Amino acid sequence: MATKKFLLNEKDIPTAWYNIVADMVNKPLPPLHPGTKQPLVPADLEAIFPRVIAEQELTTERWIEIPEEVRELYKIWRPTPLVRATGLEKALDTPAHIYFKNEGVSPVGSHKLNSALPQAYYNQKAGVTHLTTETGAGQWGAALSFASRLFGLALEVFMVKVSYNQKPYRRVMMQTWGADVVASPSNTTDAGRLILAKDPNNSGSLGIAISEAIEKAVKTPNTKYSLGSVLNHVALHQTVIGLEAEKQLDMAGEYPDIVIGCFGGGSNFSGISFPFLRHNLIDGKKTRIIAAEPASCPKLTRGRFEYDFGDTVGMTPFLPMYTLGHDFQPADIHAGGLRYHGAGTIVSQLRRDNLIEVEDIPQLETFDAGRLFAQTEGTIPAPESAHAIASAIREAKKAREEGRAKTILFNLSGHGLVDMSAYDQYLHGEMQNYELSDSEIEKTVSSLEKLVP
Amino acid sequence: MATKKFLLNEKDIPTAWYNIVADMVNKPLPPLHPGTKQPLVPADLEAIFPRVIAEQELTTERWIEIPEEVRELYKIWRPTPLVRATGLEKALDTPAHIYFKNEGVSPVGSHKLNSALPQAYYNQKAGVTHLTTETGAGQWGAALSFASRLFGLALEVFMVKVSYNQKPYRRVMMQTWGADVVASPSNTTDAGRLILAKDPNNSGSLGIAISEAIEKAVKTPNTKYSLGSVLNHVALHQTVIGLEAEKQLDMAGEYPDIVIGCFGGGSNFSGISFPFLRHNLIDGKKTRIIAAEPASCPKLTRGRFEYDFGDTVGMTPFLPMYTLGHDFQPADIHAGGLRYHGAGTIVSQLRRDNLIEVEDIPQLETFDAGRLFAQTEGTIPAPESAHAIASAIREAKKAREEGRAKTILFNLSGHGLVDMSAYDQYLHGEMQNYELSDSEIEKTVSSLEKLVP
Repeated sequence: MATKKFLLNEKDIPTAWYNIVADMVNKPLPPLHPGTKQPLVPADLEAIFPRVIAEQELTTERWIEIPEEVRELYKIWRPTPLVRATGLEKALDTPAHIYFKNEGVSPVGSHKLNSALPQAYYNQKAGVTHLTTETGAGQWGAALSFASRLFGLALEVFMVKVSYNQKPYRRVMMQTWGADVVASPSNTTDAGRLILAKDPNNSGSLGIAISEAIEKAVKTPNTKYSLGSVLNHVALHQTVIGLEAEKQLDMAGEYPDIVIGCFGGGSNFSGISFPFLRHNLIDGKKTRIIAAEPASCPKLTRGRFEYDFGDTVGMTPFLPMYTLGHDFQPADIHAGGLRYHGAGTIVSQLRRDNLIEVEDIPQLETFDAGRLFAQTEGTIPAPESAHAIASAIREAKKAREEGRAKTILFNLSGHGLVDMSAYDQYLHGEMQNYELSDSEIEKTVSSLEKLVP
Repeated sequence: MATKKFLLNEKDIPTAWYNIVADMVNKPLPPLHPGTKQPLVPADLEAIFPRVIAEQELTTERWIEIPEEVRELYKIWRPTPLVRATGLEKALDTPAHIYFKNEGVSPVGSHKLNSALPQAYYNQKAGVTHLTTETGAGQWGAALSFASRLFGLALEVFMVKVSYNQKPYRRVMMQTWGADVVASPSNTTDAGRLILAKDPNNSGSLGIAISEAIEKAVKTPNTKYSLGSVLNHVALHQTVIGLEAEKQLDMAGEYPDIVIGCFGGGSNFSGISFPFLRHNLIDGKKTRIIAAEPASCPKLTRGRFEYDFGDTVGMTPFLPMYTLGHDFQPADIHAGGLRYHGAGTIVSQLRRDNLIEVEDIPQLETFDAGRLFAQTEGTIPAPESAHAIASAIREAKKAREEGRAKTILFNLSGHGLVDMSAYDQYLHGEMQNYELSDSEIEKTVSSLEKLVP
């Protein structure tokens, strides 16, 4: 019998996260203070983050040690399996070897716990007693709910109101772990009250929820804010994914020709790809690294590289990134985790330097891919992860046409069991694609202030 | 760092299932033909099952070899982790060592795939092209949907109408894997039409769904019926759970004082416990084996040992079992997988011989346990599995009172991510217990025909 899963032992959980900034020739441009437009220093971030996280955000150290307490808790589900997708390969009749890293086996159902745990840990160590965050579809909110519970932190999650009402299962998951979940916009913050005064029926947005969460953190004693993607320290924590996958592919006697992650703000993409990109940068490897984003929110493929706000309202520092503009309103697609206007600063610089490839995929193709994956490998993928699967299928078909046995690795960032209403729409032919015209793109990026030197 | 998870390699997947009947001094009484009331022979079962399954149902062989193709597919998720529940132990301040076997990591979310795969395999080998089955909450229907897809079998699932409407997520899961899901009672069978003619608004029951599925199998060419619990061949297939757990506890240097499974028809309970009960029977071990059932459906604790039908309508053979009567209507609790009137024949004989312990648990205690487990170990358990957790917590508290470091093993039969509406009710104080009075029990069992010699 051929081996299907490649499993590591708990002692193989990485002891340090990998910071790719150390190996980049062109470092990311610095974030700018929104008032002075001067480069940020860690102290600027300490209003909302504990010192260690502020330092991790700006560090150029190559390896950051994972605290023993965090490694101990990683054992709840890590190391995660690397799986040879033999069923999918057979269905595609491809000579390619397709592997996926299954991050959906975490108790919260996605990779998000990789960063939620250290964030909760560092906050608790710093004497913080309360955290705030925002969540859209709910994957990040779910992860931080469990992590906060483990470290005895109270957590308030501002959940976009439309999701709060339409995705009750993820709300209940967060509440089961003990979080306080508030539909945003809410009456508990100035930002929320301002929005509601103008429009009592406002159904919320990620931008509003971020504003509420940051405001609550700044105004409440012993309270900090926590974010689940985009920022450098989040990408750092997620590198456990790729570091494990590297060891597991080695067990399989393989090295990847192609590494693929779906792309929202960058957390799971960075996690699976940076440890392999490292070998491109320092060892002369030539692995193709592909970020797969939705055609309805194509910041990497069609956005502009510019300084922009991380939130819709404009409360964050200016971040140098590929962006569609901070007030871009993505279509209401089902991969809620990918509906974000900008890319993290590291990924944006890598894109600018052509060190990664980018690809945008229509929604229906991603659900075709998700269903085929479910029917051949069992796991029903999250709509976000289905973007990576669709990209892997494109490459496997190319390999078939070329008759070449390429090795493809993608990250299965999470399962889709709390997203079945999306599959219901898909199966009933009620789903559509959302494509943006060139003039729509031009319109959304034209308002960006020109700050890149 | 202490080890938390005990992981086996794929080569450690068992090569044979264990049949406890071989080691029982008092064998289970034979099932009786419903017409002649004579003991069944395999041929009697071949109207609805392929020959190999009919033979497995009645065999007294000790070890049944697992087909290579089935072992290969078990690799999709097996071996499953054995986990030391250190977080739960700490929260309970108990000297007990608590371990759980995590069957929730299967792609369908429960242990049910352990039997769905071999059943689909044997049917395909026998030239069957279509399967029928029934499902209540949907765990079994989901498992058989994926298994049927893997073997290219068409599957029709009769899903109890109230669940079909109230649990759309599991319906969509089955449809994503490619099954045809029909709300029962339906217009596609005589049984369904009969019911609907009397009551067009009938919301269905497991009994009606079984009748429809059997009728459809009997009347359609190349079509057989498949069941996910109660019967001996299902218990047999599920023993991979306990066989793996035995090896894993050995890695941990432990042997269990107590083994616990939740109890509906017996599939996961048999799977986790029979391999350990074997050592009680043949090696003089004294492990306590506990079946944890809902207080609202207490066939093992308060039912009568008698011959009864396996379905509500009375189409199956007479099975010798602890039962509340085949027309018993359990309260509408959230552990849908435990709402069954009878226990499998093997478990019933073991109970009769006092070789296992039985325990009934009120619904609210199970959700208290489920929440504590989620908050300490991460995974939100299925409401069914929460019965096993509640029982383990009772034993861990006793160990604390006695100051004894007992080793407790329970089976986490599945996760609860598709059952969050139940947790929502629980968290909002809208859930209640359902207890049966002695007179209610007496009334439900008094109609049983007396066939036990």
